[in-house]
Amino acid sequence: MPAQPDFDNLSLVLVATRNPLNIGAAARAMSNFGFFNLCLVNPYEPSFREARSAVGASELLANAPVFATVAEAVADCTLVVGTTAVGSREVRHPIKRLQDAALLIRKRLATGRVALLFGSEKFGLSNEDLSHCNWLLRIPTREEHRSMNLGQAVAVCLYELARSSRRVQIPEKGHPATAGDINRVASLLLQALDASGSLTSRSPARTEEKLRRLVRRHNLTAEDAKFWLGMFSQIVYKLRK
Amino acid sequence: MPAQPDFDNLSLVLVATRNPLNIGAAARAMSNFGFFNLCLVNPYEPSFREARSAVGASELLANAPVFATVAEAVADCTLVVGTTAVGSREVRHPIKRLQDAALLIRKRLATGRVALLFGSEKFGLSNEDLSHCNWLLRIPTREEHRSMNLGQAVAVCLYELARSSRRVQIPEKGHPATAGDINRVASLLLQALDASGSLTSRSPARTEEKLRRLVRRHNLTAEDAKFWLGMFSQIVYKLRK
Repeated sequence: MPAQPDFDNLSLVLVATRNPLNIGAAARAMSNFGFFNLCLVNPYEPSFREARSAVGASELLANAPVFATVAEAVADCTLVVGTTAVGSREVRHPIKRLQDAALLIRKRLATGRVALLFGSEKFGLSNEDLSHCNWLLRIPTREEHRSMNLGQAVAVCLYELARSSRRVQIPEKGHPATAGDINRVASLLLQALDASGSLTSRSPARTEEKLRRLVRRHNLTAEDAKFWLGMFSQIVYKLRK
Repeated sequence: MPAQPDFDNLSLVLVATRNPLNIGAAARAMSNFGFFNLCLVNPYEPSFREARSAVGASELLANAPVFATVAEAVADCTLVVGTTAVGSREVRHPIKRLQDAALLIRKRLATGRVALLFGSEKFGLSNEDLSHCNWLLRIPTREEHRSMNLGQAVAVCLYELARSSRRVQIPEKGHPATAGDINRVASLLLQALDASGSLTSRSPARTEEKLRRLVRRHNLTAEDAKFWLGMFSQIVYKLRK
């Protein structure tokens, strides 16, 4: 029998949300479907905890930690999924339909922590936010009217995650690396590029974003991450000597 | 092949809705998922058409007819389905899970009109409203927190109705790297390890095999391979100097 997903392993991360009513609505949907770990990154209104829309979920809202950066919010997660309303031509990440995405997320929830990111109402997730994501999911809305209300998008995603409890299990290789490991690999890569004189970009921050995307796409296991960290530490050390 | 459901055959009926923001949110979700017939029965706020939450769906909202009774709103429908958050012990109607209900509704939409009723935020559908329903559907929420926000409940129901109808294929990113590219990356990796003094194994051939397996597991695109090749060439060149 496949391992059951543990809903406590999901962090629902709202990034730069403007309207506290949407935060409350997200909290309510979480409680409706049995998810209890809400994280906020830079919410626009510090008073969001009083949102009246969190009907029946005020405790969940009261306990939600606030982080300054996405990196901190997802540091303990082995899978980071962003949500988007745009099409695959506009972003560099692989995009999966909610239905397919939910299968992968549920599978991972059986063994490790997963972060599901929602961007701000107006702009969605920024490129910096996206650079922390393994891949993106999209709710299959009409091409002519893709963008959903934030609280409704959260509800639909959690409904799909909770929808089917029995699914086929596809075995995975090794333990996945954490987001923290991946950031460390990306950062060492940047140092190696710099030390070897191949950092030509004028914007190291953008290059680091690109590297993070690249490394994340490679689906490292914890063991792979250890190998790459060891290797790049040694290379950077040698190059700097 | 079964007949396709015609989404124009669905009337989404909001009964005695109090908060115009919820009416606007329902309109937005309808437009997101491709349903355009909204009906209102006795909305509490006559000014609901100005609801700012109907982002991208103001025309749909402007065209929504208002009825004085449920009977009038559903008069042309051959199937009338009510939504409820309560359990089957509390009502006399058969209750189906959303998933099963959606199958029946979709089937009917291929040939006739269907009404889907949502009651007021506070009280749900009244016994009088329920008397017009063939059966009820329930979104499978937690027993301890069953009642959803109205706009979110509408979004989840319409998502489920639209879920299996359009198979949006989202193309994969980039062309995969060739085996030749992967071998070159692995071979440069070996040289970088050697030049940085971290090649401890007595059998470079076995190490190269391991590296090849590692690189292959990362599912590089052709573009990724080009990046890694450029980077390691430069590193090896610098280390050897």
